[in-house]
Amino acid sequence: MSTGTGTSVGVDVEDPACRSLGIALEEVAAGRARLRMRITDEMVNLHGVAHGGYLFLLADAAFAYACNSHGRVTLAHSAQVTFLRPAAAGDELVAEATERVRYGRNGVYDVTVRRPTGEIIAEFRGQSVTVSGRPPGDLTASGRPPSDDRTRT
Amino acid sequence: MSTGTGTSVGVDVEDPACRSLGIALEEVAAGRARLRMRITDEMVNLHGVAHGGYLFLLADAAFAYACNSHGRVTLAHSAQVTFLRPAAAGDELVAEATERVRYGRNGVYDVTVRRPTGEIIAEFRGQSVTVSGRPPGDLTASGRPPSDDRTRT
Amino acid sequence: MSTGTGTSVGVDVEDPACRSLGIALEEVAAGRARLRMRITDEMVNLHGVAHGGYLFLLADAAFAYACNSHGRVTLAHSAQVTFLRPAAAGDELVAEATERVRYGRNGVYDVTVRRPTGEIIAEFRGQSVTVSGRPPGDLTASGRPPSDDRTRT
Amino acid sequence: MSTGTGTSVGVDVEDPACRSLGIALEEVAAGRARLRMRITDEMVNLHGVAHGGYLFLLADAAFAYACNSHGRVTLAHSAQVTFLRPAAAGDELVAEATERVRYGRNGVYDVTVRRPTGEIIAEFRGQSVTVSGRPPGDLTASGRPPSDDRTRT
Repeated sequence: MSTGTGTSVGVDVEDPACRSLGIALEEVAAGRARLRMRITDEMVNLHGVAHGGYLFLLADAAFAYACNSHGRVTLAHSAQVTFLRPAAAGDELVAEATERVRYGRNGVYDVTVRRPTGEIIAEFRGQSVTVSGRPPGDLTASGRPPSDDRTRT
Repeated sequence: MSTGTGTSVGVDVEDPACRSLGIALEEVAAGRARLRMRITDEMVNLHGVAHGGYLFLLADAAFAYACNSHGRVTLAHSAQVTFLRPAAAGDELVAEATERVRYGRNGVYDVTVRRPTGEIIAEFRGQSVTVSGRPPGDLTASGRPPSDDRTRT
Repeated sequence: MSTGTGTSVGVDVEDPACRSLGIALEEVAAGRARLRMRITDEMVNLHGVAHGGYLFLLADAAFAYACNSHGRVTLAHSAQVTFLRPAAAGDELVAEATERVRYGRNGVYDVTVRRPTGEIIAEFRGQSVTVSGRPPGDLTASGRPPSDDRTRT
Repeated sequence: MSTGTGTSVGVDVEDPACRSLGIALEEVAAGRARLRMRITDEMVNLHGVAHGGYLFLLADAAFAYACNSHGRVTLAHSAQVTFLRPAAAGDELVAEATERVRYGRNGVYDVTVRRPTGEIIAEFRGQSVTVSGRPPGDLTASGRPPSDDRTRT
């Protein structure tokens, strides 16, 4: 799962929320991240479509990895999501986060949630704020991605 | 858990996502809803604070109940969230959704996520769109709240 | 134009943008503000409806007065707007800003733009950040509202 | 001002709001548009920085041209803006709108507002809804861009 520019991390996500949901961190690199999650029966509602909260959660996790990829503790200030298509149980969704701009302590990141076939399920935009300090254990320096948990500290 | 103006629904949420997360629907009434969720160890990151995705999910679920409370199938078009304070494992959070305005097929709903002590954790605003048809089984007419699953259909 | 709880300011807005658009500051008080603007022929498009940018501008100006009402320089970090109804040339619109929450340096403000008849034209939510220093001239201490210009400094 | 892929339109904007503000429509093509506006003394506040409302207005106008470029009447449903840097009187700002996704009647557009030197002033995201009918006079078919006025009808 390694790519030329990113850091391969496989299943070693070390984030309880992501781990318990089976979210795979496929790639993290400076200013971007790609995560994958399978919609389970517990993530859907009575109609068998994914709860919007889980679509947001996947995008938000990708946002957190991308904005913490520079080795500075970075928090989510706010986010906005637009829901385009429903997703169903069994769907494997991929969230791809890219950095749009950083200026001073502020950053703007876009995350697109797609089916593997390319159909867009949701578009997410997150606003980040960088605070003092480095991620615990300085994971970025060791070649491991900063965990999402720094995002809400 | 019944209130004077709302419909008591207790634990009978019938939404797989909400049920699996232990979300309790405390009240639903015309244009509003109040849900409660306890942050579990699986909802937190390494620092023991709640993943922002779960804060959004709780607010989004409250939004869904509120905007479907009028007996018409109503979808979430988009939403925006601002994160104010972190929440920790063990925290019992309450999301209160209120209708701000409806016009034509469009609606705007505000959801505040608080600790029981009143401290605000997150502020959410959702934009809804009403589509044709009634919620399956016409749950609103039977005194039961429309399930969240209609929100993404 | 004075109200019991607010500060009457009349036409003395001292903000070039507001003044050139004829925006009247009807009231400013701790955490809130009410502004009025008449849609002119130059604010409309070919169909005679108000350009969404002017609806946002009016709401944003009310947001700026409300979030600077505490005597600390406060900036607009971001904002979101939902357009509900069109407004026409000649319409007199009122934007009412209220503070939803402040925590640390962050604030969330809601602004509703209405026709005098009460019909809602747009719903706006702004996120503010307070920075060091006081508004120039310490306008709040002198009983005059902080001007909007501090909002983008 | 013509480009290879877009339609040159020069000063013929035919939108009273854009015209009165001196907004130049540099390019419009399928799903995108580029507009230019000079910050005048009347667009600033006491500190000489551009009012956020005018930054939004410029971005919103670019959004309107981009989402109406397909020849179907398309409305702005909602929008979100993040303010990165201040702009000053005399600054010449360029807003560049690109289509992110369209699905069914819904669209998502990104607009970046830059100084000519490339510094980003603001990031805007707009959600559009396409309604029945064609733009008045079917401007797109005649090689002229649909005017912004269709955006709020």
